[in-house]
Amino acid sequence: MSVEEVLSELRRRIQSRLPPDINVTGLEFEGPELVIYTDDPRRLADDGEIIRSLAKDLRKRVVVRPDLKVLMDPEEAIKKIQEVVPKEAVLTNYHFDGETGEVIIEAEKPGLVIGRHGATLREITKLIGWTPKVVRTPPVRSSTIANIKDYLRSVQTERKSILRSIGRKIHRDIASKDQWVRISTLGGCREVGRSCMLLSTPESKIIVDCGINVGSDDSATPYLYVPEVYPLSQIDAVVLTHAHLDHSGLVPMLYKYGYEGPIYCTPPTRDLYVLLQLDYIEVAGREGKRLPYDSSMIREALKHTITLNYGDVTDIAPDTKLTMHNAGHILGSAIAHFHIGDGLYNVAFTGDFKYEKTRLFDPAVNSFPRLETLVIEATYGGANSIQPSRKEAENHLLRVVRETIKRGGKVVIPAFAVGRSQEVMVVLEEAIRKGLIGEFPVYLDGMIYEATAIHTSYPEYLNNELRDMIFHKGINPFLAECFVQVENSKQRDEIINGEPAVILATSGMLNGGPIMEYLKGLGPDEKNTLVIVGYQAEGTLGRRIQKGWKEIPLTVEGKTQTVKMNMEVVTVDGFSGHSDRNQLMEYVRRVYPKPSRIITNHGDESNCLDLASSIYKKYRIPTSAPMNLETIRLI
Amino acid sequence: MSVEEVLSELRRRIQSRLPPDINVTGLEFEGPELVIYTDDPRRLADDGEIIRSLAKDLRKRVVVRPDLKVLMDPEEAIKKIQEVVPKEAVLTNYHFDGETGEVIIEAEKPGLVIGRHGATLREITKLIGWTPKVVRTPPVRSSTIANIKDYLRSVQTERKSILRSIGRKIHRDIASKDQWVRISTLGGCREVGRSCMLLSTPESKIIVDCGINVGSDDSATPYLYVPEVYPLSQIDAVVLTHAHLDHSGLVPMLYKYGYEGPIYCTPPTRDLYVLLQLDYIEVAGREGKRLPYDSSMIREALKHTITLNYGDVTDIAPDTKLTMHNAGHILGSAIAHFHIGDGLYNVAFTGDFKYEKTRLFDPAVNSFPRLETLVIEATYGGANSIQPSRKEAENHLLRVVRETIKRGGKVVIPAFAVGRSQEVMVVLEEAIRKGLIGEFPVYLDGMIYEATAIHTSYPEYLNNELRDMIFHKGINPFLAECFVQVENSKQRDEIINGEPAVILATSGMLNGGPIMEYLKGLGPDEKNTLVIVGYQAEGTLGRRIQKGWKEIPLTVEGKTQTVKMNMEVVTVDGFSGHSDRNQLMEYVRRVYPKPSRIITNHGDESNCLDLASSIYKKYRIPTSAPMNLETIRLI
Ligand SMILES: [Zn+2]
Ligand SMILES: [Zn+2]
Ligand SMILES: [Zn+2]
Ligand SMILES: [Zn+2]
Ligand SMILES: [Zn+2]
Repeated sequence: MSVEEVLSELRRRIQSRLPPDINVTGLEFEGPELVIYTDDPRRLADDGEIIRSLAKDLRKRVVVRPDLKVLMDPEEAIKKIQEVVPKEAVLTNYHFDGETGEVIIEAEKPGLVIGRHGATLREITKLIGWTPKVVRTPPVRSSTIANIKDYLRSVQTERKSILRSIGRKIHRDIASKDQWVRISTLGGCREVGRSCMLLSTPESKIIVDCGINVGSDDSATPYLYVPEVYPLSQIDAVVLTHAHLDHSGLVPMLYKYGYEGPIYCTPPTRDLYVLLQLDYIEVAGREGKRLPYDSSMIREALKHTITLNYGDVTDIAPDTKLTMHNAGHILGSAIAHFHIGDGLYNVAFTGDFKYEKTRLFDPAVNSFPRLETLVIEATYGGANSIQPSRKEAENHLLRVVRETIKRGGKVVIPAFAVGRSQEVMVVLEEAIRKGLIGEFPVYLDGMIYEATAIHTSYPEYLNNELRDMIFHKGINPFLAECFVQVENSKQRDEIINGEPAVILATSGMLNGGPIMEYLKGLGPDEKNTLVIVGYQAEGTLGRRIQKGWKEIPLTVEGKTQTVKMNMEVVTVDGFSGHSDRNQLMEYVRRVYPKPSRIITNHGDESNCLDLASSIYKKYRIPTSAPMNLETIRLI
Repeated sequence: MSVEEVLSELRRRIQSRLPPDINVTGLEFEGPELVIYTDDPRRLADDGEIIRSLAKDLRKRVVVRPDLKVLMDPEEAIKKIQEVVPKEAVLTNYHFDGETGEVIIEAEKPGLVIGRHGATLREITKLIGWTPKVVRTPPVRSSTIANIKDYLRSVQTERKSILRSIGRKIHRDIASKDQWVRISTLGGCREVGRSCMLLSTPESKIIVDCGINVGSDDSATPYLYVPEVYPLSQIDAVVLTHAHLDHSGLVPMLYKYGYEGPIYCTPPTRDLYVLLQLDYIEVAGREGKRLPYDSSMIREALKHTITLNYGDVTDIAPDTKLTMHNAGHILGSAIAHFHIGDGLYNVAFTGDFKYEKTRLFDPAVNSFPRLETLVIEATYGGANSIQPSRKEAENHLLRVVRETIKRGGKVVIPAFAVGRSQEVMVVLEEAIRKGLIGEFPVYLDGMIYEATAIHTSYPEYLNNELRDMIFHKGINPFLAECFVQVENSKQRDEIINGEPAVILATSGMLNGGPIMEYLKGLGPDEKNTLVIVGYQAEGTLGRRIQKGWKEIPLTVEGKTQTVKMNMEVVTVDGFSGHSDRNQLMEYVRRVYPKPSRIITNHGDESNCLDLASSIYKKYRIPTSAPMNLETIRLI
């Protein structure tokens, strides 16, 4: 059947399920959703059950949108909304989208706009014609998110036609009688830095992650020139497990070379990848490096991004359903689970994951409806890669901070903008709030503040306790008074010459960024402490300092000078967003159902091989650590 | 450097090596050869050393051809040739090729035309301008070979331009800095019937074998639709290990889907694949099957075929050299050895091979200049796949024949046209000649006679003893009086009703062909014997008879009738052209140098897996039995 035939068959079935006087005026696949247009969306909204049962019956994600002619004038509509919604919801903003017939309502308490089982929303729909969507009023405005929203609104006509063509591709006919599933390794195998795999069947080709190794010259990008991925126009989907550049960094380039399809990721991953990619090209451009893409390509990627929340089962190809599950690594990080064929095969990619509850996130999901192959990261896959517990790490950090502050020094913590920074912030905020380490400012320099603003926009992606604290106890640790954003060099000088404080600054491996100015200003004084909480790669300045270098060459404002490192240097292990060896093995032991095959990646050669052979020895699950450029047949 | 620059650089170097008065009028890459055109080929021919040392120095296959204007009129040239060559050579035919400036001289004793170290040939070159090539006067004329020669002559202009464009592609610049070598399995893994692998590097893509499983409907052809091989126009070369259809059968189809490159194989493989492919499409067409190609595609393949003799080291891609080595399986069968990069990697594909001296061939070559990966067939890879020795098999066959003839019966031997037939012929001829089994005619029916004619055209591809017998003792067993070709149905009736005899007829698994008429005519009489010397696949009539069926349905001339199988049925094992389990293990033990990796294929699943694990257990060489559709990175 052609897509046209499928749609008219669906229309017939839908019409037959609806009361006869409800008129379906249009039916379209838009991205993975089936959109029903009707001139009487109120009637459909009346009975939430109809849509739910339709969705279940058709096994599609069904959305109802009003025919354009039934939409009320926006000004009038706002009045109606305000009449229906209780004052306590505190409505702060509205955006009317003429293309989709949606109105996005910002409220401080979105639950009150939604109402019990969605009753209030349906009431609104009935009154104004527009389909209301509710979002939380952001407590801090993230300029990244604001820019993304503005941009997407500005291209909404084009985006609609993109979604329609994606929708039609997803629902195309299945042509082949062959049944097989393969994984091709394009990057990130026996290495960390350019994660990229291709999942293919006779019907579909899906790229899982497409990262860049910013620290490498000769192995920076995945092997995208091999025929397995060509032509890029025939790739069905790109799926991002999370926003770190080693997973997302090369995605915009795909659009330069002919890719036209969607990017699937969680909403926070979308916002964070935009932040990190823009920063990457800005920094690399400043250093005069050749860039694989420019900002227009990041916008192109954004235009093609379809966000999925954890647990949404979504058709992304004629034979493939994708579900994202919490990975516990950074905000929005996901284990990507693929269900292929009608019960033929299931494969999950952990991406980077943490199998331990952290200050920010729940531990990674370890239970799936079905699972035959698990692709698992091995950053700490080696037998000796054991990390201290979170609790030990926190105590260590607090002890170091307390002592340094006490002796009148300053604590400098180099950190990546996304991940460890927010973790450390939550620990420090609690300790200060509880009076455990005294009172002092915590300065945030570099992109940390902006990344934190994105975190505060997605409380539903944080763990239960943190979410509970924000929603019910009214304490948002990210908004605590102790945190001060650093805006410029002058302010940095004042901090360096000022009172005891903690400074969180990028970059995390001391190879550039504002951290360098703090090093120069605070390094010579032995009262100060440099606290290293993240992994320092071989060859970085961070690693050298960790090894004990006492004189370091610093280039500040174009001039190179030697700075004496008299400050104390302390490495605090245990804050990693990656599962350590014990957690990896424990995850494999507990993952349900037990997979029949495991593949390790995202670790250096010995870690990938060691984890693979240990899993096999302990659990008798066939496990391999492929090289890049291999293709493994799963079935 | 562009190819143009390479050629002009080469021309400078060549000119500088030659006496100053010798004029190079042209220089071209034609296929893998570097062709020097000169108006004074006699001068170059004078000193064979110049060309040899040039070839060694340039590391290219160098050929000298006369500029067209120096060529003597053919009639006059023939007179000159006859003056120079001793009478005993017995010149029987000449063909002048205006395109290449070559004259092919047929002689009964080619050695006498060549002369000591090529002295006579050089003398001829000096006298007539044409470059002489000598071939043996065929003792039996193979119509296949005659047709191939005629066809190639008729397209020589087009062929020359094909060779030039291939030559330029082979000598193109190397573009990538990456270094890797991969094998992708497209067919023939954990199965027998559609052998096909892709050997790829950043620079080149080479298909090794491209077979068809004529007995299968749903897995008849290799997975050629996967992106690894697309577009076919970017494949550099197809290499055929031998002519059997499970290795060569789908090659013509490649030209239908955009392949334009060369096929490399030995000269006998070329002639035999034409014979077998033409037969395949004829038989399949008669049975009303859908054909993957027609005879025009076989001609297309032929037009692109470049023959290599055992031991010729040949550039087939910018980074790849191919050398064929005797595989001992059938006439012209080869182990294909690839040397990749400048010492980067070496991989050999055994194809089908026999590691035992047979009546026809030397055992497979087991020594290579270098070898890192060996891809080995596993037809008899199972632990229990032990075959009787050749000697035992021969004695068994002769005993059965002797007894049947003695009791006045006839022996019917179903056989594939190429391989076992000739083996059995040699055994029978010797026994008859030595008076061991009496005297009687041996009838050859089906394509056997034609296949035998091709064998007699390539005595240099037979083993030492057979070659020696033919050349020095004047005994060509294939031409013995006992062999009688069967031409038609009337003759068949006479044989069936005639005196005791042996009948060798196709097809080998009793699924069609003239063998069916003999079965119908001779099956009911218990004096006769059916001797099965080849493998009978599950589902074939041959297998059923082997299992003891006493009544068989036969369709002869459109009518189905039941025939009583009263004749004796004897299976004589040990004539296989494949190495048995012991020979496979022995080959791995002895292959030199010891490879660091072994891959098994061309056997059913359990045989491939069993051989792989046995090799690992016994020799500690990492061995795997991949599935189809995998890609293995070698380096
Ligand atoms: Zn990460
Ligand atoms: Zn990562
Ligand atoms: Zn799932
Ligand atoms: Zn064969
Ligand atoms: Zn074969």
